Formats: sequence, C-alpha cells, structure tokens
Amino acid sequence: MEILYGNAVIGQSGGPTAAINATLSGVIRGAMAHKEIGKVYGAVNGIVGLLEERLTLLDPQFADEEAFHALECTPAAALGSCRKKLPDPDKDPSIYEKLFAIFAKYDIRYFFYIGGNDSMDTVAKLYAYAAAHNYPLRVMGVPKTIDNDVMGTDHTPGYGSAAKYVAVSVQEMMRDCAVYAVPAVTVVEIMGRDAGWLTAAAGILSRYHGAAPDAVYLPERVFSYEQFERDLRSALARHPNVVIAVSEGIRLADGTYVGEGTQSGATDVFGHKYLSGAGKTLELWIKEKIGCKVRSVELNILQRCASHVASRTDIEESVLVGRSAVDYAVRGVTGKMMCFIRTSDKPYTVDIGAVDITQAANNVRCVPDHFINAAGNGITDACIDYILPLCEGELNPIYRHGMPVHFVIDKNVTVPGAKG
Amino acid sequence: MEILYGNAVIGQSGGPTAAINATLSGVIRGAMAHKEIGKVYGAVNGIVGLLEERLTLLDPQFADEEAFHALECTPAAALGSCRKKLPDPDKDPSIYEKLFAIFAKYDIRYFFYIGGNDSMDTVAKLYAYAAAHNYPLRVMGVPKTIDNDVMGTDHTPGYGSAAKYVAVSVQEMMRDCAVYAVPAVTVVEIMGRDAGWLTAAAGILSRYHGAAPDAVYLPERVFSYEQFERDLRSALARHPNVVIAVSEGIRLADGTYVGEGTQSGATDVFGHKYLSGAGKTLELWIKEKIGCKVRSVELNILQRCASHVASRTDIEESVLVGRSAVDYAVRGVTGKMMCFIRTSDKPYTVDIGAVDITQAANNVRCVPDHFINAAGNGITDACIDYILPLCEGELNPIYRHGMPVHFVIDKNVTVPGAKG
Repeated sequence: MEILYGNAVIGQSGGPTAAINATLSGVIRGAMAHKEIGKVYGAVNGIVGLLEERLTLLDPQFADEEAFHALECTPAAALGSCRKKLPDPDKDPSIYEKLFAIFAKYDIRYFFYIGGNDSMDTVAKLYAYAAAHNYPLRVMGVPKTIDNDVMGTDHTPGYGSAAKYVAVSVQEMMRDCAVYAVPAVTVVEIMGRDAGWLTAAAGILSRYHGAAPDAVYLPERVFSYEQFERDLRSALARHPNVVIAVSEGIRLADGTYVGEGTQSGATDVFGHKYLSGAGKTLELWIKEKIGCKVRSVELNILQRCASHVASRTDIEESVLVGRSAVDYAVRGVTGKMMCFIRTSDKPYTVDIGAVDITQAANNVRCVPDHFINAAGNGITDACIDYILPLCEGELNPIYRHGMPVHFVIDKNVTVPGAKG
Repeated sequence: MEILYGNAVIGQSGGPTAAINATLSGVIRGAMAHKEIGKVYGAVNGIVGLLEERLTLLDPQFADEEAFHALECTPAAALGSCRKKLPDPDKDPSIYEKLFAIFAKYDIRYFFYIGGNDSMDTVAKLYAYAAAHNYPLRVMGVPKTIDNDVMGTDHTPGYGSAAKYVAVSVQEMMRDCAVYAVPAVTVVEIMGRDAGWLTAAAGILSRYHGAAPDAVYLPERVFSYEQFERDLRSALARHPNVVIAVSEGIRLADGTYVGEGTQSGATDVFGHKYLSGAGKTLELWIKEKIGCKVRSVELNILQRCASHVASRTDIEESVLVGRSAVDYAVRGVTGKMMCFIRTSDKPYTVDIGAVDITQAANNVRCVPDHFINAAGNGITDACIDYILPLCEGELNPIYRHGMPVHFVIDKNVTVPGAKG
C-alpha cells in the first residue's frame, strides 16, 4: 500500500437525516486520528459549495468529546447539503477540471462524500476521473438515507432513527386514537416514494407493543381500493379505532400515484390544481365511501430529522462507518461505498465493509417479497426481525433549558486561500 | 371536618394529552393512600361510561411503583375519554338521577374528573346537584389540556409537554430546513383554535437555542396578509430558510379563519369542499405571491400525545396535582378545581391550590397582551419567562425493544354488580 499524505475534505449531500452528522463526526474523528491526513476541510453545501471554494476548517472546531457528541445528536446536515448530479465527464469536463484544480490548490488527497444514491454517483464519477487522470485522490462514499434504498448495504445510516421515529409516533398516535368509542379511521402517511422501508417500520409494533396499525401499504405492491375497503371494513368490525399506515408512494394498477387522485378535481382559490398526498386522498375517499370519522396525518419532515428520539444503534453505527471510511482510504481503498454486512438477526451482529461504488450508484433497493405478507397489507416476521434491531437503544442527547443542544458548525473558519 | 368513608371513581374527559395519565396516576396514588377511601374505580370513557356502569377496579392494577411510572409515561387517556356536556339539571334531571343511583349503588363518595373546560362544567353540575340533594359526594376537577386555556390556574397539566414537543420539533425542522441554500419558506401549523399558548411555545427557542422561527402568529391578533407579506420578505432578505409558526386558529379582520380561505375555491374529486388548515392556505398563498419554494407542516395529533419527549416538570406536577386533589377532597373540600399558583418565574416556584369550579368552567384564558410583541408577529421576553420553566426537564420513559413501554389499563376488572 502506498502511503498518501495530504488534506481531506468532507461533504454532505441529499436530504437530511438524524444520522448524517453522526457519520460526519465519524469521518472527522477518523481524519483527525490518522497522521497521513493533515487539514480536515468541510465543503459547505456539498459539491456545489466545493465548486465555489466554500470550505471551512473542521478540526479546530472539534477540540473535545463533547463537541463530537453534540454533533452526533444534531439532525440534518451541519455542513449544509445540495442536490446536484455531475455531468458526464466526456461531455462536460470543465466542472471536473475546476474541482480537481481546487483539490490540487488545497492539497486534497482524500474526499469523503456522505449521501444517498445520487451522491454515490458523484463519488463514482470523481473516482473514475481521478483514475483516468492519474490524480492521487482517494474517494469514498458513505451512504445515508432514511429511505434505506441504497444497494450494496444491509441498511443505510439514518434509516434506523427514522424507523424508530415512525414506530414511536404511530404507537403514540394509536394511544391517542383509542380514547373515544366512536368508529374512526386514522391514516398515517409515511415517506418513501419508491421503497416502503420506512412505512414498514410502523408494522414492527405488532411484535412486542400491542398497538400496531390495522394495515400497512407499501409502494412495492399495487394499491387497490377494493382491497382497501375490505381491509377497512374488516378492521372496523373488530374495533372502533382503526389506524392505517401508507407510504406516500403507493400506486394504483395503472401506475398513477394514489395522491394524484385528488389533484384532478381540486383547485385552490387561485384556480391551481391542489396537490395532496396519499393520506389526504384516502381520508377523503373514506369519508365518502365509509362515512365514519376520519383523519389523515402526514409525518412530514420530522421523520427525517427527529434526533431527540434517534436510535442509538443507528447513531453509533453511523459514527463507526464514517470512521471506517477514513481507515479504508488511508489503507489505500478508493472508489468504494462503505456498507453494512449483517451476520445475524438474533443476536443482531453486523460487519462493516466496502463495496464497489458502481454497485451502489443510481440503483434503488426495494422491500423484498418475503418481507411483505401475501395479502399485501402488512409485513412479515422476517421483516420485523430485520427492522427491530436497527431501532434498538436510546441516545442521551444533551438538553439545556428543556431543549436538545445542537452543534452548529462555523462555516467560515479561515482557510488560507479560500474565499469568504 | 367531617370524615367521609366510601369508594372513589375517577374519569378522564376531553382530548388526549401526554400528562392526563400522570394526573390519573396521582389520583390513584392518593386514593390508595387514604384510609377513608375504599375501592378505587375507573370510569371507562368518562361520564358516558359511568352512565352505562362501565367501571373497572384500578387499585388491584397498581401493585408497584413500576406500574405507576409506566402509566405516567403513557400518552392519551388510559381510561378512555368522552365529549359530553351534561344537560341543565332543572330541565333534564333524569341523567342526574341515574348517575347518583350509580354513585349510591357503588358507595361512591369521591368523584375526580380530569379534563378541560367542558369537563369542569360537568364537575360544577355534579357538585351543585349533590349539594341541592344533600348527597354526600365530594367532587373535584383536575384540569388538563394542551391548550393551556383554562381559567383559574397559572397553567394546565399537559401544556408543558405539548409546548416542549412543539419547540423541540420546530428546532429540529429548522435544522432540516437550513441545509439548502435556495430560498424557502416552511409554515408550521400548531394547535390552538382560540388561544395561542401552544404556538407561542415555538418562540421560546430564541432565548437560548438560536433557531427560532422568523415569525409567530397567534389567534389573539388579527392576521393580515399585508403584514405577513412584509414579514416574509424581510425574513427572506436576511436568510434563505424562513420558518413561520402559525396557530390553526388565526383569523382575518372580518373574523373568518385563514384556513377557510382555501375551502371557497377547492373541491375534491367528489365535488366536496376541501377543508384545509391555516398552514396549507398560507403555503398556497406564498407559492402564488412570493413564488419561492414553500412547504407547510401540520404538527397534528402528535403534539398532544408525544410522551416520549414529555416535560419532566409537567409530568411531575401532573402527578402531584392529582394526588393533591385527593388530599383536598378527603379533608372536606368539594366543588373545586385544582390549580397551580406560580410564585416566581426565576427560579420557577409553584404552589398547588383549589379554585371555585364555577370560576374555571366554560371560560377560555387567552395569551395576554404583554406576552405578544407590538407588531403581533412574535412573543415577548415575559412570555418566554412564563413558558420556559414548564418545558424543563426530561423524563426517562422505560424503553423495551426500542419503543417506549405504555401502560394499558384493564377496563374489565371484575366489579361486583357491574356490567360486562
């Protein structure tokens, strides 16, 4: 292995999660620990900020364990994020020339990118460009997404915390809904456009907690109003307080999203078509067809940033996988995405590894068939076995004056030669 | 004081909170501790269940401290709730005759009712009826509501936890919204039809946490789109990620709810008028008038049942006020509502007392003028001083397999003579 001395830059990309800063913390910890790495830069707003030389020095900001712990308990992307897909380098090399000039200017030899599918595409392209141009840059991707839909890893950092938030919230809402004796349906809409992993998390409550939703609908199965009506009426015959979990991405047989239904007829005061979600659409449908009391709840962005109820397993693994990415890179690995390899469900054990970045980029990993019940309205025991350990354990975030303390990264720590 | 021996019944009424079971726990603790009280009954679904003799024995279900602690960490109303206003006893005495026959049958001498404004009306009527008919029944109300709008008390059990949930969630969403550099507005709709207490809680973040909403609109002030537009443009000029907190109950100068705006034009696929909230209405308005990226988030029912992030101050006070209600009743007090009397903001100190039930029933306590800033788009320091201590402290709920453990009351513990 060739020893490579130089500076490191870390970027965050894509949608926020409760764990993306834990991975950032792990990468900073790793980068500060290895003598091969000098300065540790953060790219503000990911690759977009890097292109504008918006770099901030991170290592001076992490003087003690308390700072790392606070960062690990802070939701979203402390460095800021972006959504940008790099062009094909053959068609538009200029953006790569610019990026690699910045790498050279700052003596950057290590690039760590924390993100989802699209971000892994960025890692793949930078790796390929560096290899083709013989630029000594080690490029590592670390996955993150609440959607859990990245290929090449057992699960993604961020999923466990989001899944825990979903299950904890659904459990609480079921207690809430159970107080009245009047028949009522509550539809909970959960994130996940193409993959139902997060919605499936609502189903884990049935194992130990006795307050599981009556039905769980994932985008991996065609949604049918006929079955929905049967499921609803059967649940209402059993008890008055029915709770349904649906993925935002459920679709009808013709491929249209359930949420699109409401658009067709509804316009707002300005005459614009009214975009509503799957939950609201089903609420209106139930009001019309069943006629009972009905409400829809959209978990919305809280499910991706609720650090106050993060999974300890998720956060600890997220730190570890970030730290391991640095270990791998220093040992000479490049062009890989870090991954989890589960070795056992009971007890839950997991190894950390790295897969070829091209295996991960631009693909979506859906909930497999054996995790969904035959009726398509719930999850199987195997699915619960898979999800449960990822939600295990509670963090102890630092609270001050009743609120969790968040770590705010100074995005303007002076870097010689940097703008701003 | 006359010593009164007999059984007790406890009921819960109105909307759920994260603290109503803590008060229930306090009442059960108190009733089990006093030798004057024999059996401790729970009325399932409040006064409605009581009328149907749906009683369950509580004291055998609370054998140890763990059971009490789990109940205190369980959201909503473990006995079930109801929404029922008792008729005027002069016009319809039959319902009272039935209730008091049940009291006599079960030798009930103590009645504790945990609820909001309407429930205090029930307490007032039962007290008056007992007094008029010389029935030896001591009737005590214990307030609860996330709305904090009950007269005669400094604050209500349940408010502190809901306020904490609102502030914690808004803080996390502000981290989430801050990750992108594109101008965007997020409108958070918070419960409170007539009183803005809960929405005001979003404003406390400005004191210590550096991530407070740009504007906070309460129903105590007339909402004006002109001012809203000025506030928005001024905030967007300062930073790209604008967050606005609005009460569901904000109204225009003509008295109509802001949320009503969307109804007028919007219909769903069935041709029904589309009821949307204040947040969604403002989202559509911003899209039209400002044209930037915009999103609305409705905190919905989670804000009233999120026990996992309850305020320790709120839960401990809720237990204490329930326990004190029993102490008062055993000492001969009746026809009162328990209350908090704040003796100091810094340090926060509070006494427990009892006020005449007629003072509390059927009135609404709004946010006072000196808690709202002159522009009507934020809260004052005095308001922060008031709210902050109520959110202080964290509970340690019991978690098992990653989820909080809830206590489920057995609603069918055999009672001699009871139905079912």
